Amino acid sequence: MEFLFNDKKVYYEIYGEGKPLFVLNGIMMSHLSWKPFLTEMTKHCKVVLFDFLDQGASAKLPDEVYTHDIQVALLRKLIEHLEFKTVDLLGISYGAQIALQYAISYPDMVSKLLIFNAASYTTPWLRDIGRAWIGAAKTYDPMHFFHVTIPYIYSNTFYTNNIKWIEERKELLKLVFDRKFLDAMIRLIKSSEMFDVRDSLSKITANTLVVGSDCDYITPPDETKKLASGISEAKYFELQECGHASMYERANEFMTLVNGFITTSQSLKIV
Amino acid sequence: MEFLFNDKKVYYEIYGEGKPLFVLNGIMMSHLSWKPFLTEMTKHCKVVLFDFLDQGASAKLPDEVYTHDIQVALLRKLIEHLEFKTVDLLGISYGAQIALQYAISYPDMVSKLLIFNAASYTTPWLRDIGRAWIGAAKTYDPMHFFHVTIPYIYSNTFYTNNIKWIEERKELLKLVFDRKFLDAMIRLIKSSEMFDVRDSLSKITANTLVVGSDCDYITPPDETKKLASGISEAKYFELQECGHASMYERANEFMTLVNGFITTSQSLKIV
Amino acid sequence: MEFLFNDKKVYYEIYGEGKPLFVLNGIMMSHLSWKPFLTEMTKHCKVVLFDFLDQGASAKLPDEVYTHDIQVALLRKLIEHLEFKTVDLLGISYGAQIALQYAISYPDMVSKLLIFNAASYTTPWLRDIGRAWIGAAKTYDPMHFFHVTIPYIYSNTFYTNNIKWIEERKELLKLVFDRKFLDAMIRLIKSSEMFDVRDSLSKITANTLVVGSDCDYITPPDETKKLASGISEAKYFELQECGHASMYERANEFMTLVNGFITTSQSLKIV
Amino acid sequence: MEFLFNDKKVYYEIYGEGKPLFVLNGIMMSHLSWKPFLTEMTKHCKVVLFDFLDQGASAKLPDEVYTHDIQVALLRKLIEHLEFKTVDLLGISYGAQIALQYAISYPDMVSKLLIFNAASYTTPWLRDIGRAWIGAAKTYDPMHFFHVTIPYIYSNTFYTNNIKWIEERKELLKLVFDRKFLDAMIRLIKSSEMFDVRDSLSKITANTLVVGSDCDYITPPDETKKLASGISEAKYFELQECGHASMYERANEFMTLVNGFITTSQSLKIV
Repeated sequence: MEFLFNDKKVYYEIYGEGKPLFVLNGIMMSHLSWKPFLTEMTKHCKVVLFDFLDQGASAKLPDEVYTHDIQVALLRKLIEHLEFKTVDLLGISYGAQIALQYAISYPDMVSKLLIFNAASYTTPWLRDIGRAWIGAAKTYDPMHFFHVTIPYIYSNTFYTNNIKWIEERKELLKLVFDRKFLDAMIRLIKSSEMFDVRDSLSKITANTLVVGSDCDYITPPDETKKLASGISEAKYFELQECGHASMYERANEFMTLVNGFITTSQSLKIV
Repeated sequence: MEFLFNDKKVYYEIYGEGKPLFVLNGIMMSHLSWKPFLTEMTKHCKVVLFDFLDQGASAKLPDEVYTHDIQVALLRKLIEHLEFKTVDLLGISYGAQIALQYAISYPDMVSKLLIFNAASYTTPWLRDIGRAWIGAAKTYDPMHFFHVTIPYIYSNTFYTNNIKWIEERKELLKLVFDRKFLDAMIRLIKSSEMFDVRDSLSKITANTLVVGSDCDYITPPDETKKLASGISEAKYFELQECGHASMYERANEFMTLVNGFITTSQSLKIV
Repeated sequence: MEFLFNDKKVYYEIYGEGKPLFVLNGIMMSHLSWKPFLTEMTKHCKVVLFDFLDQGASAKLPDEVYTHDIQVALLRKLIEHLEFKTVDLLGISYGAQIALQYAISYPDMVSKLLIFNAASYTTPWLRDIGRAWIGAAKTYDPMHFFHVTIPYIYSNTFYTNNIKWIEERKELLKLVFDRKFLDAMIRLIKSSEMFDVRDSLSKITANTLVVGSDCDYITPPDETKKLASGISEAKYFELQECGHASMYERANEFMTLVNGFITTSQSLKIV
Repeated sequence: MEFLFNDKKVYYEIYGEGKPLFVLNGIMMSHLSWKPFLTEMTKHCKVVLFDFLDQGASAKLPDEVYTHDIQVALLRKLIEHLEFKTVDLLGISYGAQIALQYAISYPDMVSKLLIFNAASYTTPWLRDIGRAWIGAAKTYDPMHFFHVTIPYIYSNTFYTNNIKWIEERKELLKLVFDRKFLDAMIRLIKSSEMFDVRDSLSKITANTLVVGSDCDYITPPDETKKLASGISEAKYFELQECGHASMYERANEFMTLVNGFITTSQSLKIV
């Protein structure tokens, strides 16, 4: 399904019944990435998948420079459009950044906030990695873009143990990483460069889960831990032997945390 | 409620509806320890709490030397008595040892196995810590028993940050740690000394969750990790800044993992 | 050799040539514990071994309650007695506490400070472990004292892998842990209870090395790390798969750090 | 100074007195990189700095495809040329690979082997990162090459905390990364692709130190640990809050380990 946001097409899909869980994509992902998870995810909630502007089936923004504000506004409109009041948000990486900003801007409208593999700001280190990605995109060589980006999205162990699957993905992504995709990537990466919510984390009132991975080479676990420690009562988990794309590397652990966090009140006080 | 096992009283309680989840106590715990968790636990299943022999409201075994086999047999009878076919088992520490032995002896009768803070055998190190506990029990000085056992059940950070609660528990446990309790503890600790399932882990066919804690000074995380790696497809989590009594130190994280693991199929295959 | 401090005998030995390195014992150690290290230690310095009051060959203090101040004063007198101006101090555990207090009281008189397996204060958790040790000592049962104290001084892995050596030590320590020894231990442990240098660490001007162990169950690595972070320019190492008695578990790594830290200026500035 | 190896110029410099320590550069380094360390390094040994073929002041190999064998042969000739019998080898990253191969080929001629930030083979993951580097080099855009390579050589924390120094290096390296340098880099990276000593590690008889870094995103610590566990009696250290270029991030800790390992016999047996 789709709706218009500032005259731009935004694509979304809705599955299941229950309280609404919006799923926010990582930068190279689209709503399609979540298909394998739907059976598990819809056990407890109505799942809304959608693509951000410059992602998947939503509109591209060829001539624009923008910040995360535009995606936050899009999400706000989509939630209004679907007539939800409060929602749960699940975001990974780029999607986690938008989820954090949304929960800061609309604290009363987020019930549970599930943050995977994110930092509280784009450090100079991560900014320069982003510049490497932009530089690689600008060569319009899909294999170069693959090699600069994909290995670091996974842990060494996962990549090495699943090298056949990785090689298959190379063939697949060769076709995906076309000029249009890479131009969109450049805009999306640029829009992440100024991300910084360090001073606003205390505004978050949602019940928050933060999950890091011990072998995350994009948002290293010390950054994820710092993020968690800035959010009141956030629950922190660190996945073991896992890289940045935790949903792929540890799909069952990922779903265990999602289903567990969503169905648990998080209000136990033993001490 | 109660039933007789070899003419010994076994106490149990049942809560909620759904597929049965048997909860197996740690060595110093009883069915009462789980009361704060019932609201969360019964969201998805019928929860069976019970006390092992020499624990809580079940019979004491004053003149006996026994091994885990007796508790495994007790659990078998209780499950038969309640006319369940396959069940989920959740055990922590001592309870996890019994759960592992049960899942090894009756692989077809365990659907999901949730193991918290356990090792695959009683290492010489853990055996000698057990001897310290026995030695302390034999003084029949409740404060000495407290100081020898309780600090190491928690992480330094938790114990230090919650020292008021700890001091209250000292007062409380002073009364609990009477001669009868300590004599039972001695028998329970002795029965753990020979625990060793290293060679049988491959018999487990249940969907298994293994959870360790980074600051567990009784069953250190390297042992928990080794245990997990011996069980086919086991999912491993390591709680951060958490000690051996993970259910108390991280009650919400504990429930998140329990509810998540129980409600998720654990059969996702992305790669 | 010996000298009198407040009319009490203090035993010491001197080995080698070079700048003076004073070696400060852990609580159950004596100057004898360092004999295996002398060949390595004297490669670069004049090594002074000695026993604190209530330790080894120094005087016992049967009827006294004291704090670390007395041992710091003893060390001051010993250094004056030997006519050294500035010295290097190496302390482990209890000895590290005294070394820290000395470096705080006499910052100009310490050149290099080497701290192994220590925290910046006796946390309530560590205090209660101390009380377990005192309680065990008061039974005057050497095996009970052994089981309460020794397992936690080592990592599970080391203890388990070297269980024969441990069993030999049991036989040996059975004789060492006599009434006189245990009474002295009680006083030494009590004197540690008030140790707290958190507010004074900034006074340390010595070049400082802080070494923790990942499996230290007495002074867990998070405490050692915190200690290091309170000392200006301190260099921090964390020994892997190693317990509290790092000098025994990782003798060569221990000596590598000692010889390396002592012979290196620690003043490199690359950035 | 220089000598000819297969008619190719090899540049080297010798400093200090004592037993010879050969220092083997990382892939982007040259003998110049070690200048800040010479005062410390020459305290205990005669230091030999040199550049591998295609590095620094040694000859470039424009039209050749080669493996590490050529650099191992070069090192052999240099050691013969200088008339040393047994030597100590210190290598970091690429240099560590050559040092490992040398110690495998000439076990009797290496006394101490100091390995920093290396794995036992080029995993598919690391191979693809190498391909990203090659792809970036082939653009001949020095800033793109910088962004693809340099951030991952440091930890996020170091890079972020020293961003001014990093920006200065950008300006500097803009000039260094010229066509000739980048072409040599391509050859050097390619020569690393087949590196694999997993099956030969047991041949190493040298006293070996292996050092990893917890935030090493090129040779992650699990790989370094595995390497260490393959070498008989290897001593393993893991630097805390440190990236791949450990000598820059933790210069004093680096020198502490080097001086400590070189001056200690590594033959202590406590247990």
